Amino acid sequence: MTDQKTMARAIEILKEQRYYDSIQGLMGWDLWEGLSEKGQPYRQEVSGYFTRQALDQLKSPETKKVVDALREMGPGDFADVYEQGVAHALIDRYQNAVQVPEELQVELRNYTGRAQMAWRDALDHNSFEEYQPWIEGLFQLKRRVAEAIDPNRPTFDVLCDTTDEGIDTAQVGAIFANLKTGIMEILDAIREQHQAIDTSVLDVEYTHQQIRDTAYEINLLTDFDGACAHDSHVLHGMCTGVGPRDSRIAISYKGTWGGIFTMLHEGGHGRYNYSSSQRAIDCGLWGGLRGSMHEGQARFYENIIGKSPEFWQIAYPVVLRHFPQLKQVPLEKFYMALMKVTPSVHRITADELTYSLHPILRFEMEKDWFDGKTKTKDFQEIWNAKYQEAFGLMPKDAREGVLQDIHWASGHVGYFQSYTLGNLYGGMLLEAMEQDIPQWEQQMAKGEFSAINGWLHEHVHQYGMAIPPQQLLRQVTGKDLTEEPFLHYLRRRYLTKLR
Amino acid sequence: MTDQKTMARAIEILKEQRYYDSIQGLMGWDLWEGLSEKGQPYRQEVSGYFTRQALDQLKSPETKKVVDALREMGPGDFADVYEQGVAHALIDRYQNAVQVPEELQVELRNYTGRAQMAWRDALDHNSFEEYQPWIEGLFQLKRRVAEAIDPNRPTFDVLCDTTDEGIDTAQVGAIFANLKTGIMEILDAIREQHQAIDTSVLDVEYTHQQIRDTAYEINLLTDFDGACAHDSHVLHGMCTGVGPRDSRIAISYKGTWGGIFTMLHEGGHGRYNYSSSQRAIDCGLWGGLRGSMHEGQARFYENIIGKSPEFWQIAYPVVLRHFPQLKQVPLEKFYMALMKVTPSVHRITADELTYSLHPILRFEMEKDWFDGKTKTKDFQEIWNAKYQEAFGLMPKDAREGVLQDIHWASGHVGYFQSYTLGNLYGGMLLEAMEQDIPQWEQQMAKGEFSAINGWLHEHVHQYGMAIPPQQLLRQVTGKDLTEEPFLHYLRRRYLTKLR
Repeated sequence: MTDQKTMARAIEILKEQRYYDSIQGLMGWDLWEGLSEKGQPYRQEVSGYFTRQALDQLKSPETKKVVDALREMGPGDFADVYEQGVAHALIDRYQNAVQVPEELQVELRNYTGRAQMAWRDALDHNSFEEYQPWIEGLFQLKRRVAEAIDPNRPTFDVLCDTTDEGIDTAQVGAIFANLKTGIMEILDAIREQHQAIDTSVLDVEYTHQQIRDTAYEINLLTDFDGACAHDSHVLHGMCTGVGPRDSRIAISYKGTWGGIFTMLHEGGHGRYNYSSSQRAIDCGLWGGLRGSMHEGQARFYENIIGKSPEFWQIAYPVVLRHFPQLKQVPLEKFYMALMKVTPSVHRITADELTYSLHPILRFEMEKDWFDGKTKTKDFQEIWNAKYQEAFGLMPKDAREGVLQDIHWASGHVGYFQSYTLGNLYGGMLLEAMEQDIPQWEQQMAKGEFSAINGWLHEHVHQYGMAIPPQQLLRQVTGKDLTEEPFLHYLRRRYLTKLR
Repeated sequence: MTDQKTMARAIEILKEQRYYDSIQGLMGWDLWEGLSEKGQPYRQEVSGYFTRQALDQLKSPETKKVVDALREMGPGDFADVYEQGVAHALIDRYQNAVQVPEELQVELRNYTGRAQMAWRDALDHNSFEEYQPWIEGLFQLKRRVAEAIDPNRPTFDVLCDTTDEGIDTAQVGAIFANLKTGIMEILDAIREQHQAIDTSVLDVEYTHQQIRDTAYEINLLTDFDGACAHDSHVLHGMCTGVGPRDSRIAISYKGTWGGIFTMLHEGGHGRYNYSSSQRAIDCGLWGGLRGSMHEGQARFYENIIGKSPEFWQIAYPVVLRHFPQLKQVPLEKFYMALMKVTPSVHRITADELTYSLHPILRFEMEKDWFDGKTKTKDFQEIWNAKYQEAFGLMPKDAREGVLQDIHWASGHVGYFQSYTLGNLYGGMLLEAMEQDIPQWEQQMAKGEFSAINGWLHEHVHQYGMAIPPQQLLRQVTGKDLTEEPFLHYLRRRYLTKLR
């Protein structure tokens, strides 16, 4: 096979693999949106069948031949970064398919399908005991997966690497230590000021529909393309990329003003998912990089943009249109109430400053379990102790504590660190963007997002999953992963702008 | 291969074919429920890919070997009707796959995906001109499909046979002629009585939500299993069977009281879909027979049950709970207003008696086109002329006329007759059921549905698609298709019970 023929066939295989991703994404979304209660067993059969079909294609002698040929190719043999991305992605998929036994993959997918329903029930019943066996089952399954991928590395390193290519837990641990120190310093400096902030202006009568409409409109202010996304009604904020121009976004209807930031967050995921170049789509590379880079885009829109005082100059009028009773409340007062830093037990509703600490606690819990230091039956206690230690706060029940996240149920173990890492990525991208668009904040205040969106599209979004995250980060920022730009940004926001 | 091995492999193949049906069903449902506007082109790619995959399996040498072996087997070689059904279903699928070129099948599926969106837009714009090229395209495609299946039979016969196995249009035409005469006789006899019925009691203030909730609760009165079905929000009443215990039901939110009957209708489809025996599921035969038998079940619950005075003894209290302003209106008055026979231009909202004539008009239009007697550019005119002739009524615009049904857009050409045939099937089943459950009407009045549902389950639903419709009908009723039992039922209802 010539290199050209190899590449053409590799692209075809990858595109077909993405078709399987697309129907699995749709089936995942449908778990919440349409699937009947008694429809679940058959859905598992169907999902399992197509998982096996996709794996069969990867494990076929033909794919092996293509992968072997790709491995022989050097950087100079690729026409562009997309071809290189295809080779990288296909080799990666092939290895995972060959290394992880098929039955284990099917078992994992079926298990997460049922575990998510169990999580929902446990949350209804406020029962950690009901959920605990599922956590145990999932962690055990994940251990088997990691051991299959690489039995010679520490299990948890392998899992985190799956989420976030090129990251290891030692590096993450060191960076998190610096970050913790930096955040605590800022927190100490502003604690008194923020304790004094009066948030009573936020306590207005509202319906979920009002919050949803407000959040939806505010998200559109960032030039979000509603024709590429569907706004769903599920329990938990989420974004599923069903196709290259088809993002399914959901916000939880439980919070109040927090729903605005969830929408901006999921909107960031949705935008990254729907903004791949046509070339990326044609190569099966649409949808963006997994893990921290995706979280980074979500948190960029949620926080760096969505919590800036400049953005609130255009967002507040939307709020006032939906909540006319706030007409007498000045923007400054409302905005500062939203931004109040208050350590709390709940990750999703945490303020921007302390947020990064929440995923770190979960990351530590996972790491300790995989290092054999803890048992899942103690997870509620461990969870509570960690919150007590970090924030001086004790969750009042399972629902407020260990049951609050769907992640473990959906198989996202070794994933939480990516939220905090996403913040760090955002900080690095912001530093680079400010060189090119020094006026970005003034532009937001005028509702102009074409430069900001255009910059992220040009440097990050267009590539889809073509360029590995560490390489992309270096290409855009000239640096390796560091916490400093994010801390710099936090200091500027909390120590300078909000004083 | 032994017969046993052949059958085991046939069941496996058929089950896998149904997995493809399941994801295509889900994608079809998602067209309305979640797919973003710009997500359509990719969805077509995905859907087309899996159509080809399913066909590849059918066309494989292995399937050919299994099918050849099945063809050698006689009735005595099958353990039960399910094994016989598997052989029948797999041979049928295989033939269609071999006879209809793959590209044509993919083209048809892609085309119907886009045509449904075009229909929605044309309906928005009230424009026949916008929709006409799509009708033309679909009829041409369907002609090619029919010619591929059997170039030696009249095209329209082949199409109707696809919907309804074992039926030919000559037979249908003769039966429809008798039916028309019989219905017109009843209509003449009650015209004056019904013109005098005062329907002003139906003119109450309502929201769509109130109608939906009322319809939902009334459907549950028939012991409908909500755990096997999802109640969707789309434009047009429909039921999609995504899995053997997973029906997606939607009612249009446009009508008022009609929504109750749409819900019962789609509930009938949903019930037939979710009531297959475990054996039928294990054989890939779940979901019920296509065409008239499915419509027959829908119309049984919509009309024979849902429009009976006995059922309204338990349904009216539900209405009163949602519409307390009706408290002063006696059941008799409300029920007679609902049942008023009034010829109209709209199929879905037609009364029970004249309903059967609407599909007949469409059936005639299709037949004339396929016989080369008409052109699609004249369809609006032809449509209007037919309504003028049959009902003395002229649709006021395209929306009220030729645009009212989604069927052609979704590829259901040679399908309409099945609604009217479904009524005839219902009449035949009722005649048989009354022998076993003479008290069925009194039972409904008390809200007891276990005997009725049980009878239909035992004689029809449990078999899924195992037994071909004509054979099943003979097995249950001892008769070949005839219009007489349905006319007998109509006469009893309209000439006796409602006088």
